[in-house]
Amino acid sequence: MNSALRRDADGIIQASLAAVQPDAAVQRTLQGYRSAGGKTLLVAVGKAAWQMAKAALDTLGEVDDGIVITKYDHVRGELPGVLCMEAGHPVPDENSFAATEKALALVSGLSEKDTVIFLLSGGGSALFELPLIPGDELQDITRQLLACGADIVEMNCIRKRLSAVKGGRFAQACEPAKVLSIVLSDILGDPLDSIASGPAYPDGSSCEDALRVVEKYRLRLSPEALALLRKETPKTLHNVETHINGSVRELCAAAAGAAKARGYEPVFLTDQLSCEACEAGRFLASILKSHASGGRSLAFIAGGETVVHLTGSGLGGRNQELALAACEGIAGLDGAAVFSVGSDGTDGPTDAAGGYVDGETLKALKEAGLDLNAVLKDDDAYHALSAVDGLIITGPTGTNVNDVAVALLRA
Amino acid sequence: MNSALRRDADGIIQASLAAVQPDAAVQRTLQGYRSAGGKTLLVAVGKAAWQMAKAALDTLGEVDDGIVITKYDHVRGELPGVLCMEAGHPVPDENSFAATEKALALVSGLSEKDTVIFLLSGGGSALFELPLIPGDELQDITRQLLACGADIVEMNCIRKRLSAVKGGRFAQACEPAKVLSIVLSDILGDPLDSIASGPAYPDGSSCEDALRVVEKYRLRLSPEALALLRKETPKTLHNVETHINGSVRELCAAAAGAAKARGYEPVFLTDQLSCEACEAGRFLASILKSHASGGRSLAFIAGGETVVHLTGSGLGGRNQELALAACEGIAGLDGAAVFSVGSDGTDGPTDAAGGYVDGETLKALKEAGLDLNAVLKDDDAYHALSAVDGLIITGPTGTNVNDVAVALLRA
Repeated sequence: MNSALRRDADGIIQASLAAVQPDAAVQRTLQGYRSAGGKTLLVAVGKAAWQMAKAALDTLGEVDDGIVITKYDHVRGELPGVLCMEAGHPVPDENSFAATEKALALVSGLSEKDTVIFLLSGGGSALFELPLIPGDELQDITRQLLACGADIVEMNCIRKRLSAVKGGRFAQACEPAKVLSIVLSDILGDPLDSIASGPAYPDGSSCEDALRVVEKYRLRLSPEALALLRKETPKTLHNVETHINGSVRELCAAAAGAAKARGYEPVFLTDQLSCEACEAGRFLASILKSHASGGRSLAFIAGGETVVHLTGSGLGGRNQELALAACEGIAGLDGAAVFSVGSDGTDGPTDAAGGYVDGETLKALKEAGLDLNAVLKDDDAYHALSAVDGLIITGPTGTNVNDVAVALLRA
Repeated sequence: MNSALRRDADGIIQASLAAVQPDAAVQRTLQGYRSAGGKTLLVAVGKAAWQMAKAALDTLGEVDDGIVITKYDHVRGELPGVLCMEAGHPVPDENSFAATEKALALVSGLSEKDTVIFLLSGGGSALFELPLIPGDELQDITRQLLACGADIVEMNCIRKRLSAVKGGRFAQACEPAKVLSIVLSDILGDPLDSIASGPAYPDGSSCEDALRVVEKYRLRLSPEALALLRKETPKTLHNVETHINGSVRELCAAAAGAAKARGYEPVFLTDQLSCEACEAGRFLASILKSHASGGRSLAFIAGGETVVHLTGSGLGGRNQELALAACEGIAGLDGAAVFSVGSDGTDGPTDAAGGYVDGETLKALKEAGLDLNAVLKDDDAYHALSAVDGLIITGPTGTNVNDVAVALLRA
C-alpha cells in the first residue's frame, strides 16, 4: 500500500464526513436565528432526530417546547424542554402514531409570530405518521398496492392523502406559524416531496392522480378512504422556509475541498451515481489510467448510491466492491488510488464504511493468494480488502447522506 | 428528438472520424519526408494497408519499390510501383507466408542511406507472418497454449520467437536501412510491442520468459522449436522511428476539438474505457444529471472499448447499448444527449456505427410501445434505437481505432 496516498484518503474521508454531520448542518442554518416575536418550537423527526435536536438546542440555548421522534434506541439522553419519543421503523407502529399526534398537538393553535423549527432526516416516513383511516385498513391498501406492482410514485400519491402529516399537511397544521424546515437528505437528487413523504413540502400529485391509481389497479377501498382520496393536499405553502443540508452534493463538495487542501485539483463528476458498483469502480480506474502521465494531481469525485446485484455469498458492501473492482485498472500505477465510503459508516452488513485500493493492491491480493475475479464474483470484498489493509473503518457516523467515491492521482 | 443536439452530435462524429482516417495520419507524418540519399521502400501491412499506402504515394509522389499485404477483398485498385497482395485473417494462411517472404526479400541487402516506410494497422499479426518452423507445428503449439489457459502475454512471448518478422525482427531485417514506422493503433493504450506483435518494435520479453512458459505448461516442442525459443529477439532497435497515429486518444482529442468548435467545454474523462457498455452509459448519464443546472455547455468524452455480456438474442452493438442505457438517466433533461460510435463504422453485427439518445428518447420509446429494461435485457438496442431515430449510420470508415462516447450538455 502507498501509505502517503492512504493518509490523503483518510484525511479526505474524515473531513467529508465531518461536513455532513447533522450537527454542523443544523448549526449552520440556525446561526443568526431570531424568533419572529412569538414562541420557538422544535419538532425533530427521523433517524438523526435526537442529534439534530441536540445541535439545535446547543445553538439556540433553549426552545419553548419541543418533541423528538426517532427510532428505537436512538435517544441518547434527555434534552431540556424537549420530549423524546421512540417509534417503529421501517414499519410504523402505535408509538409512531402516538408521537405524531403529540407533535400535531404541539403545533396547533399557534400564532403567526410563532416558529416551528422542523428537523427532518431519513426514516421519517415510518416514524412520523398518523393515518386518517384505521391502521389495519392502511395496511390492507398498502398490501394491495404492492401486490399489483404499483410504483413508488403511485404508492406515495395514495398514502399522502390517507395521512394527517404527509404531503405538506404537517406544515399546513402549523399555520399561521412559520415553519423553518431543515432537511438532512438521504435520497439522490433531494426530492423534497419524497424525503419522509414531504411533511412540510407542497405535494406535486393531485386527487385525479390518486383516483386514476384506484381505477388502474381496481383497489378495494372503504367509503371513508375514497373520500380522503378526493381531498386535495396543499399545493403551495407560504409559511415554510426549507434548507437542505448534508446532501450527497455537500458530501462531494466537502471531499473536493479536502482534496484541494491536500494539493489535488478536484474534478466533480456526479452526485447521482446509480450504476453497478463494480463498473463504477472500473470506470474510475479507466479515468485514472488516462490521466496518469499528465503531470497533474487530480481527484475525481463521484457521489451517489451504486447497486450490487449479488452473485455470491461473500461479505461486503457497495463501497467495498466499487473500490476493489478498481484495483485491476490502476494496478502498477504509481500515485493512483480509488476509495469509496458510505457516509453512515456502515457499508453492507459489515463493520466497514468502505474500501481503499491503490496501484499496489492487485499485487498484494495475489501475494495473499486471492484471485480478484473470484472474490468479486463471490461478492466477498470485505475479506479481500481486509487481507490487504484496504478496509475503511469509521464506526457509525450519525449521518446518512449516501456514498462518495474518489479517484486520486498524485503527480 | 432534440434536433439541434442531434446536429451537434453528427457534426462531432464526422469531424472525429475524419481526424483518425489512415490517410490523414499518413499524410501528416510524411509531409516533409526527405530520403536519406538512398532508396525509399514501402511496406504496408494490415487491414488499412492499401489505404495507408495510397495516402503515402499521394504524399510522396512515388517510391522505389513497395508491397501491400492486406485482407482478402481489401485491395481497391493498383498502386504504381507497389505490389498488392491479399492474405488470410484472422488465421494466417499460405498467402500470408508468401507475401511476408516477399516483403523480407524487398528489404534485404539495403544500405544505411535507404529508408523503409513501414505502415502498420490492425490485423497485422495474421497477415504479416513467416513462421520459422513448419506451419502445422506452429498450429499445434498455439493449440497447446490455448488448451492450457496461457494468457496473451505468454502466447506472444512464445510466438514472437517462432516468427521471422514478429518481436522487432522485421526492423532487424531492414538493417542498416532506416525504418520509418507509422502505426494505426487499434489496441487500448497503444502497446507497440503488441500491435501486430510488434514487427518494428523492441521485444520486452526474454528467452527465460519463454522457457518458463514451456515449463509451466509442459509444452511438447520439437528440438527446432526449442532452439528458436533460446534465440533472443531484439531488445533495442536504433534504426526505427515510430509514429503512432489514429489512436483512440486522437479520436477523443478530435471529438473534444469538434465539441469545442460547437460551443461546448470539453472534459476529457478517459481513452481507456473498458467496463460494461450499459453501466458506462449510466455513469455518463449521472454525470450529465449532476451538471444539468450548472449553466455551462459541456462535453464529457470517454473513449475506449466497452464490453457487452450478452443476456438476450436481440440485435445491437456495444455503442448502441451504451447510448440506449443512458436514456433513462437523462430522461426529461433539456439539452442533454449521450452518443457513442465505433470508429470503424460497424457496431456489432449491424449496419449502424453507434447510437444517440437525448432527454426525449425515453418518452419516444414508451410511445413506440417499447420497454427500455426489456430491450436492454434482450440486447436489442438496434431495433429500439431504430424506432426513435437514434441510430448513427456512417458506413465503413476505413479506419479502426476503437470507440468514443460523448455526453453533451447544452446550457
